[in-house]
Amino acid sequence: MAESGEWVMNAAGRMVPTVIDGKRYRPFGGAFTSKPDGRKHAPRLRTHTREESKLCASLEDAIRKSGLSDGMTISFHHHFRNGDKVLNMVLDACEGLGLKDLRIFPSAMFPVHEPVVEHIKKGTVNRIEGSMNGPIGAYVSTGEKLAEPAVLRSHGGRARAIEDGDVKIDLAFIGAPCCDDYGNANGLYGPSACGPLGFSVHDSRFADCVVMITDNLVSYPCTPMTIEQGNVDYIVKVDSIGDPEGIVSGTMKITKSPARLLIANHIVEFIRQSGRFENGFSFQAGAGGISLAVTKFLGDLMRKTGVKASWAMGGVTKFLVDLLEEGLVGKLLDGQAFDLEAIRSLRENVNDVEISPGHYANIHSKGCAVNKLDFAFLGATEIDLDFNVNVNTHSDGILLHGIGGHQDVAAGSGITFIAAPLMRGRLPIIVDRVTTVSAPGETVDVIVTERGIAINPRRKDLIERFKDSALPIRAIEELYEEAIRLAGAVPKKPKLGDDVVALIEFRDGSLLDVVRKVLPTG
Amino acid sequence: MAESGEWVMNAAGRMVPTVIDGKRYRPFGGAFTSKPDGRKHAPRLRTHTREESKLCASLEDAIRKSGLSDGMTISFHHHFRNGDKVLNMVLDACEGLGLKDLRIFPSAMFPVHEPVVEHIKKGTVNRIEGSMNGPIGAYVSTGEKLAEPAVLRSHGGRARAIEDGDVKIDLAFIGAPCCDDYGNANGLYGPSACGPLGFSVHDSRFADCVVMITDNLVSYPCTPMTIEQGNVDYIVKVDSIGDPEGIVSGTMKITKSPARLLIANHIVEFIRQSGRFENGFSFQAGAGGISLAVTKFLGDLMRKTGVKASWAMGGVTKFLVDLLEEGLVGKLLDGQAFDLEAIRSLRENVNDVEISPGHYANIHSKGCAVNKLDFAFLGATEIDLDFNVNVNTHSDGILLHGIGGHQDVAAGSGITFIAAPLMRGRLPIIVDRVTTVSAPGETVDVIVTERGIAINPRRKDLIERFKDSALPIRAIEELYEEAIRLAGAVPKKPKLGDDVVALIEFRDGSLLDVVRKVLPTG
Repeated sequence: MAESGEWVMNAAGRMVPTVIDGKRYRPFGGAFTSKPDGRKHAPRLRTHTREESKLCASLEDAIRKSGLSDGMTISFHHHFRNGDKVLNMVLDACEGLGLKDLRIFPSAMFPVHEPVVEHIKKGTVNRIEGSMNGPIGAYVSTGEKLAEPAVLRSHGGRARAIEDGDVKIDLAFIGAPCCDDYGNANGLYGPSACGPLGFSVHDSRFADCVVMITDNLVSYPCTPMTIEQGNVDYIVKVDSIGDPEGIVSGTMKITKSPARLLIANHIVEFIRQSGRFENGFSFQAGAGGISLAVTKFLGDLMRKTGVKASWAMGGVTKFLVDLLEEGLVGKLLDGQAFDLEAIRSLRENVNDVEISPGHYANIHSKGCAVNKLDFAFLGATEIDLDFNVNVNTHSDGILLHGIGGHQDVAAGSGITFIAAPLMRGRLPIIVDRVTTVSAPGETVDVIVTERGIAINPRRKDLIERFKDSALPIRAIEELYEEAIRLAGAVPKKPKLGDDVVALIEFRDGSLLDVVRKVLPTG
Repeated sequence: MAESGEWVMNAAGRMVPTVIDGKRYRPFGGAFTSKPDGRKHAPRLRTHTREESKLCASLEDAIRKSGLSDGMTISFHHHFRNGDKVLNMVLDACEGLGLKDLRIFPSAMFPVHEPVVEHIKKGTVNRIEGSMNGPIGAYVSTGEKLAEPAVLRSHGGRARAIEDGDVKIDLAFIGAPCCDDYGNANGLYGPSACGPLGFSVHDSRFADCVVMITDNLVSYPCTPMTIEQGNVDYIVKVDSIGDPEGIVSGTMKITKSPARLLIANHIVEFIRQSGRFENGFSFQAGAGGISLAVTKFLGDLMRKTGVKASWAMGGVTKFLVDLLEEGLVGKLLDGQAFDLEAIRSLRENVNDVEISPGHYANIHSKGCAVNKLDFAFLGATEIDLDFNVNVNTHSDGILLHGIGGHQDVAAGSGITFIAAPLMRGRLPIIVDRVTTVSAPGETVDVIVTERGIAINPRRKDLIERFKDSALPIRAIEELYEEAIRLAGAVPKKPKLGDDVVALIEFRDGSLLDVVRKVLPTG
């Protein structure tokens, strides 16, 4: 239970333990210092004859056949986002079978997964590796301690952890909108179509056992084959695996806030003046009001100037699909769908191309797509004077979001913008020291607020290029001081205990920060 | 050099050594007896930053950077078939760099690769794992012995050998008709378009180092991504990697021989009466005059009866593409293109779906496509009274063909037909004992000749079903005796030495047969 081992200061200036519950951790040593020299985890060899059937009578039947036992690790994908029914369904079945102390390894969780809290309290689940949005994050931050600290990883970091063998999956559950009786599956068709299914590709390849859960069993062969038969053990047909409407769980409207629109305009103008805005450029957009506005304004700029992007990534939204279909963006590399238009596009557009998170962002590969990005615009809950970015905890210290692709994109992209208003309500977003480091400052290039733009001093090239720009370039210290002035005082820090409730892994597997228990105030 | 170890009789009735050049071999124990319990080979972990370039100035530059040294194993794919320029180009470069004793591991070789013989004589190459069509086969059968016997594997067996770690590839060379500067590649576009590129998928995933050789460097990202950037180390641009016309190297015309047309008609009639000819059936077609005729006649039968196939596999030809485009076949699972129409189809038809040989036929997976086949029609150079099939050597004992998918399809398919004329010239095709066992008799169901059809006695279900059929069902012994009668005498066996020049692996890695040196006659 208790962490132990020496605590050291890592390259992001954070004190981190070197041993936690007997597991040795490498302190974060810099974003580009990992030089892996081992070999990948090796999945099991299996065989299968034409006489055997993979179809199971029920989820319980599949779990029994899989040999799942107490203490094992089960994995999930999050393509259904807040419309997912699989994770809750599986944990209910595990509870019914009397299984205990499972470690869950979802690629992300959402408010719909609040029942996990009950499964923790009952002992079905005792460890979490994966992001904890909403109620589960709040429980982990303030409730009874898990058997081991939760581990948060970026999308690329999760793929890496599977390939490197850091997390060995005993049983992967894959919700499949379209699946045949041999396990070939995709997310394109059916009542629960979710678009890409890439987040389960690594699970399917590396897990000891793989169970497909589908509400749409189609005739062999199901194509395209995002998941391949050769990796699948069992298949279960259920009534419904997800609600596609729940996929649209984040903000899908362009911001109307004048301050946020100004931020979006600043980013697009910065891109225009950057020297990299030319035919063939690339960018990563995301969801959230500011990011959607940047995508739209960037489209306006492309239309005006005739400059076209060769490709873009995102969570894909209608705004990216519009640019693709208008011919302003040549291709989309598509890791997840954020709205229904994105699902339609993946089905219809040959240049909307599904990729896995490893292809997207695994640092322990011979090259991932984030390395080819020219521009990326990301968000933050806090930014500090060292350009460190927090996306996991709020200023009250409570875990509320996953890392997503943030760390990966920040490290890979040519210019990484962090878009954030200087204040949220009365809270400054730029602080002296972030509560949690989610992405190290060395990977963050430009902070864009409505009251000014701060360039990371490491980016001497950008500072030089923008020294005569009409854009409001300012030192981050100035922005910080202005934020404090507007807030009226330096904001109070949350009251944190000694207990480490979660670890923030860097994408290379090193330890970037720890998240501590939040103590009751007052 | 010398083989050693005990010789034992395997389940195909062949004497095989248990140790060869220090390597231990499991004798073939039956087609469905392999129960692998280990783990796959684990590829290396690597990392790559956005600043590094994968582009090399020349092939020699790429080979140098790869660290290739004497005695290592290099691999190739055969999608260009007899139009391939890559294998010869690479061996010339290796010779120029003074490299010696390389083991080559092509997925197949063709007459165009005759220069390999010179590279063997000069010492650049001293071992071969892969099929040896034409002149190389003749050299291996009759010339100086290689440092180790050559190893022939089926397509699925080669994928298995890579995944299981039986063959560790130091350096994979992948000729890529369409490739970006990060290594994403496909075979669909460009002056050397070859269609699928699946035979190099396993090489790319498991080799320690991967070099893409392309004559068509396209802007990032090259899609679809049959080969993925995360597996690629280096990229070389050359003038030309292949001649697509050379892909059409086998017989691509329907036979005009009345005897062979009769065989094709027998097969189609057998299928019709089999009880499995119903909507949703599946089949594997191939090239060669009889197989093409079967495909065409099967199309006629489908048109007449209204029965449609859900899917088919092949080497894909115009004849399969026609059935797909007419809607008689729902989907093609596409491992290789045998003509230019097949290449066009893979580019244009969303239901023409590229698969890797592992997906196709790796017995050490959780299921491969051959297991889902209802019917397959294959060829033979010899068939014996135990239904063993030879496709590798001719009756003179000389290696002339690879195994291809033969073993895999025979083992997987519901009904496996071997189509062959009873005589080729004055030579009987049905013999007492095949020169070489390429596919064991237990996996072969029906022998179809122009003078009768022999059902394997193991298939009691088929014997029962066809006991009143008007088809000329006969015992294989009768066909054998008729062949001898027609030939005028039992044909002379080739004069073989003691030296083992090649091994025939079964798809599970066990030893099915050995090929011996052919001694000069007279």
